[in-house]
Amino acid sequence: MPYQKVKGGVCAPKEFYASAVAAGIKSPEMERLDLALIYSQEPCVSSGTFTTNRVKAAPVRVSQANLRKNEIRAIIANSGNANACTGIKGLQDARAMADLVAKPLKIRRREVGVCSTGVIGLPLPMERMTPHGEALVEGLKPSNGTKVAKAIMTSDTRHKQIAITTEIEGTEITIGACVKGAGMICPSMATMLCFVTTDARVSRACLEKCLLEAVESSFNRVTIDGDMSTNDTVLVLANGAAGGPNIHRRSKSCRQFCDALKWVLTELAKDIVRDGERVTKFVTVEVKGARTYLDAKKVAEAVAKSQLVKSSWNGNDPNWGRIIHAVGYSRAPIREELVDIYYEGLPACLGGLVAETPLEKLRAIAKKGSFRITIDLNLGKSDYKIYSSDLSPEYVDFNRSEYAYWNQARKEGTVG
Amino acid sequence: MPYQKVKGGVCAPKEFYASAVAAGIKSPEMERLDLALIYSQEPCVSSGTFTTNRVKAAPVRVSQANLRKNEIRAIIANSGNANACTGIKGLQDARAMADLVAKPLKIRRREVGVCSTGVIGLPLPMERMTPHGEALVEGLKPSNGTKVAKAIMTSDTRHKQIAITTEIEGTEITIGACVKGAGMICPSMATMLCFVTTDARVSRACLEKCLLEAVESSFNRVTIDGDMSTNDTVLVLANGAAGGPNIHRRSKSCRQFCDALKWVLTELAKDIVRDGERVTKFVTVEVKGARTYLDAKKVAEAVAKSQLVKSSWNGNDPNWGRIIHAVGYSRAPIREELVDIYYEGLPACLGGLVAETPLEKLRAIAKKGSFRITIDLNLGKSDYKIYSSDLSPEYVDFNRSEYAYWNQARKEGTVG
Repeated sequence: MPYQKVKGGVCAPKEFYASAVAAGIKSPEMERLDLALIYSQEPCVSSGTFTTNRVKAAPVRVSQANLRKNEIRAIIANSGNANACTGIKGLQDARAMADLVAKPLKIRRREVGVCSTGVIGLPLPMERMTPHGEALVEGLKPSNGTKVAKAIMTSDTRHKQIAITTEIEGTEITIGACVKGAGMICPSMATMLCFVTTDARVSRACLEKCLLEAVESSFNRVTIDGDMSTNDTVLVLANGAAGGPNIHRRSKSCRQFCDALKWVLTELAKDIVRDGERVTKFVTVEVKGARTYLDAKKVAEAVAKSQLVKSSWNGNDPNWGRIIHAVGYSRAPIREELVDIYYEGLPACLGGLVAETPLEKLRAIAKKGSFRITIDLNLGKSDYKIYSSDLSPEYVDFNRSEYAYWNQARKEGTVG
Repeated sequence: MPYQKVKGGVCAPKEFYASAVAAGIKSPEMERLDLALIYSQEPCVSSGTFTTNRVKAAPVRVSQANLRKNEIRAIIANSGNANACTGIKGLQDARAMADLVAKPLKIRRREVGVCSTGVIGLPLPMERMTPHGEALVEGLKPSNGTKVAKAIMTSDTRHKQIAITTEIEGTEITIGACVKGAGMICPSMATMLCFVTTDARVSRACLEKCLLEAVESSFNRVTIDGDMSTNDTVLVLANGAAGGPNIHRRSKSCRQFCDALKWVLTELAKDIVRDGERVTKFVTVEVKGARTYLDAKKVAEAVAKSQLVKSSWNGNDPNWGRIIHAVGYSRAPIREELVDIYYEGLPACLGGLVAETPLEKLRAIAKKGSFRITIDLNLGKSDYKIYSSDLSPEYVDFNRSEYAYWNQARKEGTVG
């Protein structure tokens, strides 16, 4: 534990406020939080990373445009509807979402980031959201971080947030964050959204660099089946309220800030895997001895996304045959006769052949809820690590049908 | 039905003989056919395509080497053990398998193709196979095609074979073939093996060209999750027993032969999907209007291999949101606002937006055992087609564990 954890999630850093309401987007009957606002009293430096899916939801387009033009200092987010595949109307709705809070906050629309998560292809129920604009702003409190984490949940079984403090060059800074959803384990309803706040006084260049680096070694290590959602978004706001000297890009302080941000996002990324839909295993796939970083990545991704490998994890099966098979089709140049495979350090396969470790010992590891598989290609010095999960019959069952969901939405009038 | 079907499978063409025995590789107790031989009385022209997995089973290496050096006229194949990840011993065993029949047939070892399918990482139980060499040769009959189709089965629920006749430039020729296993739907036990025989008098150049073309438009259209086995093999033997003029590569006759071969392999490829493990749907994914062939292929593969899309098929869910989502992350350059998606010609999505077709009509199509999805990118003139299947909870359950299988193998002494 290299950092000190504190409470408060996105409201832990100084001068950050939040609120959330139940607007009836997720369900008109039940009182479930589904519309949230994060706001910094101070102007912010901001950055974001977005889905690379060519089908991009309207809120993604709006947030990207806003970040290109200036700094954002507020985020409005809803769950229950993704506002994706909704055309011109969707863009208008996303902008209207920003307006909902920009006016009462007396800031410009383009200072608001917009995020949505939920079903694809249905228009946002604006008539349910509009009445809540002022209430959201009036409800802003420095104690509402958890409410935001809850309001963005869809198929998540628990809310996920974290906050830490650390000292950078004599100034204590705080980083807070919340996340929802799942990368590799997502249904189309389960976009990955992550909001990060910090009171560090950081330059935009440093913030952008740190965010890219942190996302690459956290969320990109779990979003591995290519099933990248139309709405995936990470937004970070830094309001400088902690004071101290400005953190510039090529400084030791920036390196320290990057490390802290990376640690925070990696914790949340692991939380996402652990909370994956019907997941029973947390498996770390570690590739060593690759010729290049990209080779190591290819091998790790091929193994961690193989349906057969993931099914075997669900069955507590230390099946190295399926692993080496995935190593072979990964398109990385490997040499079968050099491949070693270990379960928690115990060899299952050495030089491409079955090792002498008794099957029962490997089986005991594969039975655990969390274990580590190491694949050593013995070709070079590059490595890569991925956090993965098993594939369960229950996952497939869970994801068999959104039809019920749609039908419900139509009945409720969420669809025109 | 452009060709006339005939009986006999790989023995339908003239001068082809086959036999199969229960050697106890699959199961020492039960009498299950697991060792087979195909033999042409006449010398053959031959060709093969093999797995591109960098982890290649020993029999694949041996067959490749034999085809490089000369023509093969016999194939020995076993099920129950893949002879993969078995090192030098595996290569010795694969060569010994060829010897088993080469000696009694009085042909050279290098004239024999060798194939294995089954578990990975265990040595071949040679002591069970060796006693059957002469019996295999003595049992050769022109009526044993079906026995071969049965002997190569592993998780297949039924044997799969076909034979047709057609006239090429006045000569009636016959093509016979059998296949086992599954591409996209395979466990590591379910390699795809396909043996093709023909009495056409065809040049090696024509045969090679036709085989590549036919495999590209058949098996490569179902082997789409990258889960390419260590053992996948297609072998074709042409003995010329039908007579007639030699079919040269750049002739009209070669074109006719290609078409026939393509038709045969496409029928078998579809059979593989239909017989996939715990499969309930046969879905044709058709991409049109792509800028390039590769773009069309990327989109079709992204859709057909998406866990979420395949789960929704299992649930009878006409979920075009998940489809366009996969189209978006396929890495093909697409424009969301131009994408149309149809179920059996009925629009579900037009220009990236929900179409007006009543959900119930789409649902009725998605409920069928077999349906076609068309994705029109409206960008160009290239297209691509894939035959796919759903992903069922039962598939995952079925593939959870080979541990039981291994343990059994150890008890039975199949493992040293």
